[in-house]
Formats: sequence, structure tokens, C-alpha cells
Amino acid sequence: MSTSRPIQRFSIGTSKREEDLIALEEPMELRIEGRSVAVVMRTPGDDIELAIGFFLTEGVIEDIQDIQAIAHVVEPLDGSQNTVDTILASGVPAKRRHLADRSLFASSSCGVCGKSTLDRVFLNAPPFSQYRSITAKMACSLPAKLLESQAMFAQTGGLHAAALFSMSGELLVIREDIGRHNAVDKVIGYCVQQDILLQDVILLISGRIGFEIAQKSLVARVPIIVAIGAPSSLAVDFCTRARITLFGFVKNNRCNQYSGF
Amino acid sequence: MSTSRPIQRFSIGTSKREEDLIALEEPMELRIEGRSVAVVMRTPGDDIELAIGFFLTEGVIEDIQDIQAIAHVVEPLDGSQNTVDTILASGVPAKRRHLADRSLFASSSCGVCGKSTLDRVFLNAPPFSQYRSITAKMACSLPAKLLESQAMFAQTGGLHAAALFSMSGELLVIREDIGRHNAVDKVIGYCVQQDILLQDVILLISGRIGFEIAQKSLVARVPIIVAIGAPSSLAVDFCTRARITLFGFVKNNRCNQYSGF
Repeated sequence: MSTSRPIQRFSIGTSKREEDLIALEEPMELRIEGRSVAVVMRTPGDDIELAIGFFLTEGVIEDIQDIQAIAHVVEPLDGSQNTVDTILASGVPAKRRHLADRSLFASSSCGVCGKSTLDRVFLNAPPFSQYRSITAKMACSLPAKLLESQAMFAQTGGLHAAALFSMSGELLVIREDIGRHNAVDKVIGYCVQQDILLQDVILLISGRIGFEIAQKSLVARVPIIVAIGAPSSLAVDFCTRARITLFGFVKNNRCNQYSGF
Repeated sequence: MSTSRPIQRFSIGTSKREEDLIALEEPMELRIEGRSVAVVMRTPGDDIELAIGFFLTEGVIEDIQDIQAIAHVVEPLDGSQNTVDTILASGVPAKRRHLADRSLFASSSCGVCGKSTLDRVFLNAPPFSQYRSITAKMACSLPAKLLESQAMFAQTGGLHAAALFSMSGELLVIREDIGRHNAVDKVIGYCVQQDILLQDVILLISGRIGFEIAQKSLVARVPIIVAIGAPSSLAVDFCTRARITLFGFVKNNRCNQYSGF
């Protein structure tokens, strides 16, 4: 997940040539039955999980049974593996097959405002019927568990992390990526593959939380989000309407709860 | 650029209800002559600069003369101003008019790998003929100037900042946004509006630097990037090919130079 490059390192009064570890970033093309539906800039590794998580949080698939086959397409020229193709199960309706076409989404938007955007999301993914709750103490205990396992960040400083925990605080999976959405899609994709029930997990993210991750969480039916960083206004408003329990600015001895209190 | 929401604040052994300042996030729809071309999640404010910077860094416009008119469309129902419509000058060729259609970009990708993605960018925006250089001391002096002016971050913890400086280190403009790309587009849009030559400025960003911001910088012809956070591998490789001078991990007494040394 990292590589090295020559750098010039400057410190007070000194300068030296070194090799530095750097987080890997490469584009990955996602295809459905040969048709290109998205290009994501991601850190290579766990590509299949990323693709599965992406298709789930974009509403294309509802569970692993919706995928008949998924695999890398190897580039004949250089052997690179930056394309993943997916064959959907025959039962997946056309409406869902085309949800990943960002073009469709973008061109169908008209007169957007915060309210209509939220309304559109809730049309496809209804709010939870009630909040799931954890104690502030539980929320505060999670970042230390993330940091213990977040190996690459310490080395490169360049990766976001996402993790899923059981309701009793047991770490289920952690993934790192140059893109924070990708890290979330990867942990969700892992659970979909492993048939772990997403409605019984807590999502922890290493940074800030905005609308898009809150939306992914609702579509995947993850009821609790704990962010080490700050939330945006739309993330707070969205979680309140969706009945997702949201914690932010979570440190080992303090946190803020933004919804569900 | 911020709003307040009720929160429950937990600290060791205590818990209290408060109002907390939160960074604003709302969707904005960008239109060209009534046609919706993109929706960006952004912090309201400087929307016209954001739209102009977005159109420049996406290759739709080359200078302010390419825009005949640009203004908010006010939503009749609630008076919200989350849509900006643009009339391009008659001389703008059809090829550029449609560059902002992300759909076009996404669907034309095939067999992507790092190399072909980079090649495609350089087709439209050639590398600089030579590196522009600044001293490490100059690079290290910039973050303090950013922090002095980065008002909202201190209050909400939720905003990215971008700033442009003259080659002699004079702050020209600083903008904050929930999205790091938006902050970059806003400062670039400001310069386009003010007719400030982008080839004579330094771009400073408050966080990490990935491929997309490096690409925006090349298309806008900004020759030097200084990032307070870490670069990705593709950002380093891209800047090396584009001959953009890249500094990362910049603190007041140390920094790393990744290209142009």
C-alpha cells in the first residue's frame, strides 16, 4: 500500500537526499458486464472489497447474492490490475444495474438544494425506525483500537482509515486508503463478502464526516458512525433525519454526540 | 460558513447539552446555459469563484473572457441559492463546452491504468517547460501565514484551506471549504476573476495532496504546490512529469521536496 520515491529532506539548516515512503494512489475502473461505470482513485489492495462496497453503497446491489462473479481484468500490455469487472445476478433489476452510472445521477439532478438532495436519498434508503445507541465511553474507546492497527498511516501519513466494530466494541475489520470514501467502501465490502450483518456494527472513521459517508452508511444500513474528526452540517442534519447515531471529535477521554441523544 | 447545532458534549465523567459550531455543507449545481453539468458538495460562499475555478481546472474555460455571464439561480420556492448558471462566450468551442460533463469523461475511460490516465491529462495540458523554484525556507514560511488567516477551521475543525501566494511569499487569497478540491477551485477562480497570472503563484493546501489537485494545478498552470500534509504516489509522479515543484509535510522548520530538486 506504499511505495518509495527519492526526496530532498530539509530541516533547520540541513538538507539531504533520501528515499521516502509514500501512500500508493492509482485509478481503478469499475465495470458492470464490460460497461465502465466509474473510475475511483484508490490505494491498490482489497480491490474486490472496494468494488463490492461501492456497488452496495451506490444502491446497485443489496447483498452478495446480487453478484454472480467479480474479478480483476488484467491489462495485457503491462499486467496491471486496475480494472474490476462484475457480472450481476440475473435477478438484479435494470433500475439498480444503472444506479452506478454517475452520469445518470448527475444529469437527473435539477434545482438541487440541500432538502431535495436529502429527499432523493431517503426515497431509495428509508431512515432507520429507531436510533441504535452506544455509550460515550464505548465511542471513546474505539480510536485507540484503530490507531493500534492503522499500520500504514504512521509510515506514510497519507492514508485515511475506516473500521467496523461490533456493538460490544470488538474490531471486525480495518482498511486504509488514500480516499476516505474508499476506506469506508472497503470495510463495508468486507462485511458483505463475509455476510456480517451491517445493522449490528459501528463505523469508525479516522477523519471528518460529510454528507457522502453518512449517505453510504444509511444505504448500507450501518446505524452508528463514530468520527475522530469534525462533522459537516449536512452530515449532522442527514444523520438526524436518518436516525443514525453520530459521534464526532472522538478522543479517548471526550467526544461530542450530534444525533440520537 | 458555519452554523450551529445542539450537541451532547461528553468529557471525563461529565456530559452537557450545548450548541456547537459546525462547518456548513450544501450541494451546489453547476449549469452551463441551463444544462446541469455537475453537483458539488461545498461550503456556501464564494460560489461564483468556485464555479469559475471549477470550469478552468476542468478545462472548460481558458480565461475570464470565455465567460459571458455567470450568476446564481434563485430557487423560487425557498429562496435558496444553490445553483449557478453560466453563459459561455460564443467563441468557446463545443469540445470545451462539454468537458465538464463528468459522464463523458467517465464513459470514455477504458482500460485505465495510472499511465494512460496521466497521458490523457498531458494531452490537454502539457507539462511546464521547466521547474519554477522557491527555497525550502520560503516553503516553510507559508503555513504560518495560512494559519493566521484560517479563521473558520479553528472554530469548527471541519474545513480545508487553500491559499495562493506570490513568488515572494505575499498572501494573495485564502479560501476554506468542506471539500479540499473546492478550496483550490475557489482560490483559482478568484485569480481568474482578478486577472492574476497563475503561472506566477504558489498554491498552498492545508492537507494532503493527491492526483486530482495536482492535475487541477497543471491545468490552471500553477507551477508550485506546497502541502502541509502528505502527497500520494500519483501526485509525486504526476508533478515530476508535469514539472510542478512539489513540497509536502511542510512545517515551520522542516519540509520534504518531492520534485524539482
